[in-house]
Amino acid sequence: MDLKETEISSQPIFKGRIVDLSVRTIELPNGETATREVVKHQPASAVIAINDKKQMLLVKQWREAIKQLTLEVPAGLVDSTDASPLDAMKRELNEEGGYRAEYWEKVTEFYTSPGFADEKIHLFYCDTLTKLEDKRSLDEDEFLIASWYGLDDLKKLISEGKIVDLKTIFAITFWENMLLNGKQVKENDD
Amino acid sequence: MDLKETEISSQPIFKGRIVDLSVRTIELPNGETATREVVKHQPASAVIAINDKKQMLLVKQWREAIKQLTLEVPAGLVDSTDASPLDAMKRELNEEGGYRAEYWEKVTEFYTSPGFADEKIHLFYCDTLTKLEDKRSLDEDEFLIASWYGLDDLKKLISEGKIVDLKTIFAITFWENMLLNGKQVKENDD
Repeated sequence: MDLKETEISSQPIFKGRIVDLSVRTIELPNGETATREVVKHQPASAVIAINDKKQMLLVKQWREAIKQLTLEVPAGLVDSTDASPLDAMKRELNEEGGYRAEYWEKVTEFYTSPGFADEKIHLFYCDTLTKLEDKRSLDEDEFLIASWYGLDDLKKLISEGKIVDLKTIFAITFWENMLLNGKQVKENDD
Repeated sequence: MDLKETEISSQPIFKGRIVDLSVRTIELPNGETATREVVKHQPASAVIAINDKKQMLLVKQWREAIKQLTLEVPAGLVDSTDASPLDAMKRELNEEGGYRAEYWEKVTEFYTSPGFADEKIHLFYCDTLTKLEDKRSLDEDEFLIASWYGLDDLKKLISEGKIVDLKTIFAITFWENMLLNGKQVKENDD
């Protein structure tokens, strides 16, 4: 069975600062037509940032879409001034945390909710961090607090329902998996 | 620092079949105002379904938002006829896979993209599956193929960029951790 749907037409509904919305009419595999509501969103980068005490950096911020404070891995939109998703992540790690990292690795990339949106996130891992004296400013409408958490605390926060962001829950589970598989997270040299 | 933002007003833009969109004006922690584009989406359920050959059930389907075929864990909206997210998941496992499961466990729940959307997913684990003779029909505009995959194949599909849905990548990583943790306990018992 060919599962492909074919776009017949697209009706633009809204073009915003962060999202665009359209309603597409498509042809189904059986020849019938249906509509699909599609949200477009810029790609973003996110990072699993680990310090030499084996702690992960999370940022606390207000999320109006769910009207609650969340704890999330540092992340941000890849904007037109960024040469690449990695470049965007280095800028965001500076802005949101005030850190620079020596060691970087790409973990994977994914769509957060392909059923209705095209938001794509590039996920990185970094360690060997140093605190910057010349931290960049946050965006004007961005307020957050960055803190470090050990794996046991993170697992407790998930089980207590205090970490509710999927990419962050995945990041923690991926990091636990790295540790279980015995992949080296760089140890303190002292 | 108090990070809370306060809603001043909300302008409805679109009410659809799947998503609603509004633009909210909010007061920032520093007293300034800003806008937030907010997408509302019904809650959904998803499942890590494992058969007695230690394979996971995934469904292949077209996702118009990203214009590609995806491999995803079985999932579906919690609709008004469902008594609970678990009830919805049992119905979807029947519709999408044609299976019934004896053993069910709640894994966790999360927001797929709280930066702009309120879509919440309740994730379950199930095993001890039996194939149903009286499989329920899919929705009229839903076309998909369900298949079973072992862990090594799933990890390969992720590394090749053939699994791109975040909840599915999380589900696979969570299942791998279950197996790794189980293996560890077993080794400790020797």
